[in-house]
Amino acid sequence: MPDDALIVFTPSGRRGRFALGTPVLTAARALGVDIDSVCGGRAICGRCQVEPSVGSFAKHGIESRAEHLGETSKAEAFYDSKRGIKAGRRLSCQAVIQGDLVIDVPADSQVHKQVVRKRAEVRDIEMDPAIRLHYVEVEEPDMHKPSGDLERLLQALKTQWGLEDLDECDLRTLQWLQMALRQGEWKVTVAVHRGKRITAIWPGFHDRAYGLAIDVGSTTIAAHLCDLSSGAVVASAGIMNPQIRFGEDLMSRVSYVMMNPGGEVEMTAAVRQATNTLIAQVADEANVNPSEILNAVFVGNPIMHHLLIGIDPTELGGAPFALATNSGMTLWAGELEMAINPDARVYILPCIAGHVGADTAGVILSEGPHWSDEIRLIVDVGTNAEIVLGNKDRLLAASSPTGPAFEGAQISGGQRAAPGAIERVRIDPETLEPRFKVIGSELWSDEAGFAEETARTGITGICGSGIIEVLGEMYLSGVLMGDGTIDGSAAARSPRVMADGRTFSYLLHDGEPEIRITQNDVRAIQLAKAALYAGARLLMDKLGVETVDRVVLAGAFGSHIDVKYAMVLGMIPDCDLEKVHAAGNAAGTGARIALLNQKGRDEIERVVRTIEKIETAVEPRFQEHFVEAMGIPHSTAPTPNLAEAVTLPERKAGNGAAAPEGVNAEPRRRRRRREAAPPAP
Amino acid sequence: MPDDALIVFTPSGRRGRFALGTPVLTAARALGVDIDSVCGGRAICGRCQVEPSVGSFAKHGIESRAEHLGETSKAEAFYDSKRGIKAGRRLSCQAVIQGDLVIDVPADSQVHKQVVRKRAEVRDIEMDPAIRLHYVEVEEPDMHKPSGDLERLLQALKTQWGLEDLDECDLRTLQWLQMALRQGEWKVTVAVHRGKRITAIWPGFHDRAYGLAIDVGSTTIAAHLCDLSSGAVVASAGIMNPQIRFGEDLMSRVSYVMMNPGGEVEMTAAVRQATNTLIAQVADEANVNPSEILNAVFVGNPIMHHLLIGIDPTELGGAPFALATNSGMTLWAGELEMAINPDARVYILPCIAGHVGADTAGVILSEGPHWSDEIRLIVDVGTNAEIVLGNKDRLLAASSPTGPAFEGAQISGGQRAAPGAIERVRIDPETLEPRFKVIGSELWSDEAGFAEETARTGITGICGSGIIEVLGEMYLSGVLMGDGTIDGSAAARSPRVMADGRTFSYLLHDGEPEIRITQNDVRAIQLAKAALYAGARLLMDKLGVETVDRVVLAGAFGSHIDVKYAMVLGMIPDCDLEKVHAAGNAAGTGARIALLNQKGRDEIERVVRTIEKIETAVEPRFQEHFVEAMGIPHSTAPTPNLAEAVTLPERKAGNGAAAPEGVNAEPRRRRRRREAAPPAP
Repeated sequence: MPDDALIVFTPSGRRGRFALGTPVLTAARALGVDIDSVCGGRAICGRCQVEPSVGSFAKHGIESRAEHLGETSKAEAFYDSKRGIKAGRRLSCQAVIQGDLVIDVPADSQVHKQVVRKRAEVRDIEMDPAIRLHYVEVEEPDMHKPSGDLERLLQALKTQWGLEDLDECDLRTLQWLQMALRQGEWKVTVAVHRGKRITAIWPGFHDRAYGLAIDVGSTTIAAHLCDLSSGAVVASAGIMNPQIRFGEDLMSRVSYVMMNPGGEVEMTAAVRQATNTLIAQVADEANVNPSEILNAVFVGNPIMHHLLIGIDPTELGGAPFALATNSGMTLWAGELEMAINPDARVYILPCIAGHVGADTAGVILSEGPHWSDEIRLIVDVGTNAEIVLGNKDRLLAASSPTGPAFEGAQISGGQRAAPGAIERVRIDPETLEPRFKVIGSELWSDEAGFAEETARTGITGICGSGIIEVLGEMYLSGVLMGDGTIDGSAAARSPRVMADGRTFSYLLHDGEPEIRITQNDVRAIQLAKAALYAGARLLMDKLGVETVDRVVLAGAFGSHIDVKYAMVLGMIPDCDLEKVHAAGNAAGTGARIALLNQKGRDEIERVVRTIEKIETAVEPRFQEHFVEAMGIPHSTAPTPNLAEAVTLPERKAGNGAAAPEGVNAEPRRRRRRREAAPPAP
Repeated sequence: MPDDALIVFTPSGRRGRFALGTPVLTAARALGVDIDSVCGGRAICGRCQVEPSVGSFAKHGIESRAEHLGETSKAEAFYDSKRGIKAGRRLSCQAVIQGDLVIDVPADSQVHKQVVRKRAEVRDIEMDPAIRLHYVEVEEPDMHKPSGDLERLLQALKTQWGLEDLDECDLRTLQWLQMALRQGEWKVTVAVHRGKRITAIWPGFHDRAYGLAIDVGSTTIAAHLCDLSSGAVVASAGIMNPQIRFGEDLMSRVSYVMMNPGGEVEMTAAVRQATNTLIAQVADEANVNPSEILNAVFVGNPIMHHLLIGIDPTELGGAPFALATNSGMTLWAGELEMAINPDARVYILPCIAGHVGADTAGVILSEGPHWSDEIRLIVDVGTNAEIVLGNKDRLLAASSPTGPAFEGAQISGGQRAAPGAIERVRIDPETLEPRFKVIGSELWSDEAGFAEETARTGITGICGSGIIEVLGEMYLSGVLMGDGTIDGSAAARSPRVMADGRTFSYLLHDGEPEIRITQNDVRAIQLAKAALYAGARLLMDKLGVETVDRVVLAGAFGSHIDVKYAMVLGMIPDCDLEKVHAAGNAAGTGARIALLNQKGRDEIERVVRTIEKIETAVEPRFQEHFVEAMGIPHSTAPTPNLAEAVTLPERKAGNGAAAPEGVNAEPRRRRRRREAAPPAP
């Protein structure tokens, strides 16, 4: 009988011969196989579970049997009785090699496990959090070899965990260190930040560590509480940004600071307080003690970024829009008055330029255009639209002053996306009768039960996605002309089109309130969409491309609109509709990536340094593109699928409209536009 | 006429040829000549002054003339008119090479100037503070090349000052950065900590930076406020440690914590508050704004060290005397609630062992035994005596439990060194009549005017140095026997020796209060001095030496006692009296060195790691030495100078006593001692 055995680990495929009696975890480490452990092989944490693959493996020449893993140890049985081990699995720190084996390391036993993302076009997140927990047994003090408790702890972490660079400790941890060591009878768990510094300590074994990914938006603050071991989101919530009382949009908040000395202090206090309310909410929901939240990552636009950190945003209110800093930052939670562990480290993603913030950096980290061969256009629409264009070779970014029309502001019947708001619209191209859906109901307005379902909220207005659809439908049904004029002659077809002073309007809902689409509403959307399109087009010029391979719409607006209508209206450049995606809150996802993977922080800092920042305000071509983009486009090259797509599948039989005449007729860039100066940047 | 010139800088001797028209500062930098500058060559700071040496320098082949430095520039003349340039000097950033020159860089123009110390046996301090000020001109923001204000500042510091490793900035500085840059019209001065991190910023030019060296003693807290450019001490003060209300000595303070949960918090608050009172006092005295204090260094014994930092000292109250940490530490002033610039960095010297603290590390840094060829014994006497022995090859350290007798406690007429305390004593060997001096008067008690001079304070007791002297004199006049017994037969010679129960005492002062030296007093001092001697002797054993080359007495007690008497009593091992020094508050000096020279911090941390720590409590030989050291020694080999020295020069003619009979008769280590168990450690 041989005194060693061949071991093959899957999925890595790493293999080696080991002496009989070697613990599987030891073999795995010797081969560099990724197996998690907090307790360091003491059958306490249960993280190192493996599963023998039983059978003949001809290609390895192995007859792999479960009994080749030896008897269950007492410690393993104890763990199983307390916390349970899945059938077929073993603790690799206890299982001992007794013969040839193929051993599978399940994903949940890997440190660097993948957190799978649903969208095919983005990369999964590899777990590599900045905070790691390590359980250690520390040598007791000895009068003959005096050394500090901290120094013996650091030595134990070096020896037992190979943490060679670890040589620092936070003051609060140091203050509590001696008691923790003695309460834990010289066994403690420490939290280590980036392999360098101890930031927390618990007596005995502790395996709960959480992190927060927070997106501070002008309107909403959103937080995800994540388990730093599994990467799972254990709670999510959002809260209104209370700074709204100082001004609806960003510029009015900057104005508030300019007009009210000390206003920045009030606003910083407001956003920090709201963040703390939100944190309490998610922690409570997940039953997590805030002291177990050991890491946090923030994203936000430049003004939110500065106000959160406590920097007066006045400089961002006017040219040259100078950021205080455009680097990523690591601070203490205590410095930001966050109601989590005060020694939690807080990472804030880098801003890109005065108008392009850490939120856009988050979008980039989430969407990964810097990994892509194809040219991607990423658009995050809010009060401004942040636009990123490029691929792994070159990335450009700009902000375009769309104004708040897409969010329902500046629109006569406009409102935020909230229950009661019209969000979907269809217009019968013959009768011009509309039907619509409102937020809070699954029914169309012409379906039975709609009135009952909407009775509670009423029909209160129209939100951004509703506006995009109604304009698209008005255009497709001939009510709206290519230059954005509501066609008065359509009044002959339906009383819904009616004179409104010297222009015309379309009556979408004859209720209380009455919801009308006026000529001014159309103009507001035209200005906004022209700004968005012009920004994208400017970056395409700079990059030297005429088309993009993929379009990603980030943010809430991007998630709610139907991209078909966005393309009908010419908000975004032509692209195969199959290659246009909504990415949801990609900024928040970017924050979550930076939370779960410390190398993501280095990655985004590196990428941000290489991004070419384009300031639309000083680019003459932006103005030209803006003027050109005011009309509703007729593509030169028809966008694949668009004609087909607007033959809307939900439409009832008989209503199927062909693409309106002329949709492919006139080259867009050769047409003359008549209207509109661009909005002031 | 040649187009270049030969320049020789003194005192460095560096030389080179430079094109005519080269500024002297540029030439100096090219040669690596050390010239200070805060403004970076803009004739603002005046730090870079040099002085041409005029005349023929045959060895260099140079005819050096003042006019070879060119005309005084406008900027230089302006500086001269505002702040004055010493006659004969020039600003090296403005003076331009016009011919051969010998140029002297005066000490006060050097960055790394030497701060001269008076004692010959210690090294001068080379200025190299952890905090440096740098004036820079920062590029204005540009929309075409967006970058943060911080990043442009860092770039300017790289370009203008070569600060390649500088890449961090404190949050408070970042919050104020944009305003500082604009107020200063893109010219600012920054404070940089260890070349790595910006910790303060001022608009325009700023050249005031101060630091604190603080010694937190059990009884007294002492602070020196230093100018971080010149190294000068601009104010010094001391304050009682208010922790005294929790217990006179260290162990009673630890007991207080053990008995009163939360007592450590009270004591931490007390010492921090007292430190802040002291800081306010020195800052006020030197007219320095506390926000300009940008660095601080602390030393203290282990218990003071832990309490200052906010660590419960309970573990230091009993074996194994475990320190929370024995490393040097850098904290923020804000973390220690210090009332200076909250972003000032606070460096705390490393502790050596549970009984040997950062104060001893300071003593070592000051006295530099690790640089010495000769074997040095360094003793710092307080409630415990810290003892360091060795040289550049090997250093040992221990603490010896002397108890508070040397400080006047446990002595019937004892008191702290304060006005009214007897500090010097002489006894006429024939009549046994004493004369003495008291603190607060320069007169001896038998001189005219003594009564008047001491009328205000009275004669209130005897302090440590007085006790040492009176015992030494009692021994030398035959009142005290070698075993420490007060000789009853001496009562026949003078009524000052009298029966006192079953033993005898010596009446030193027949006043109100009466001051007597009792047999118990002698025993208390014997115990203390035996502990001190035994500790030193133990380290000598460990080092394998029979004699030491030099003895340094650090601390207040060491400064006040007359070393001759210390040697007569056998407090310290034999040593040539010429080589016994008092070092004053060497711990505080060590703190000042670490403040003024950042490499001193690395140095002491390195040295402390190599020190062999000896725990007297667990060394059987300590007990043996202790018992042996109880008697008053008769040296085998007479200590050079001692016999001569005790023929005290101040003594009046006719009183000159020879060394007492038998002083050299009996080998000390062969004698049997009869008394005394050692004090509990």
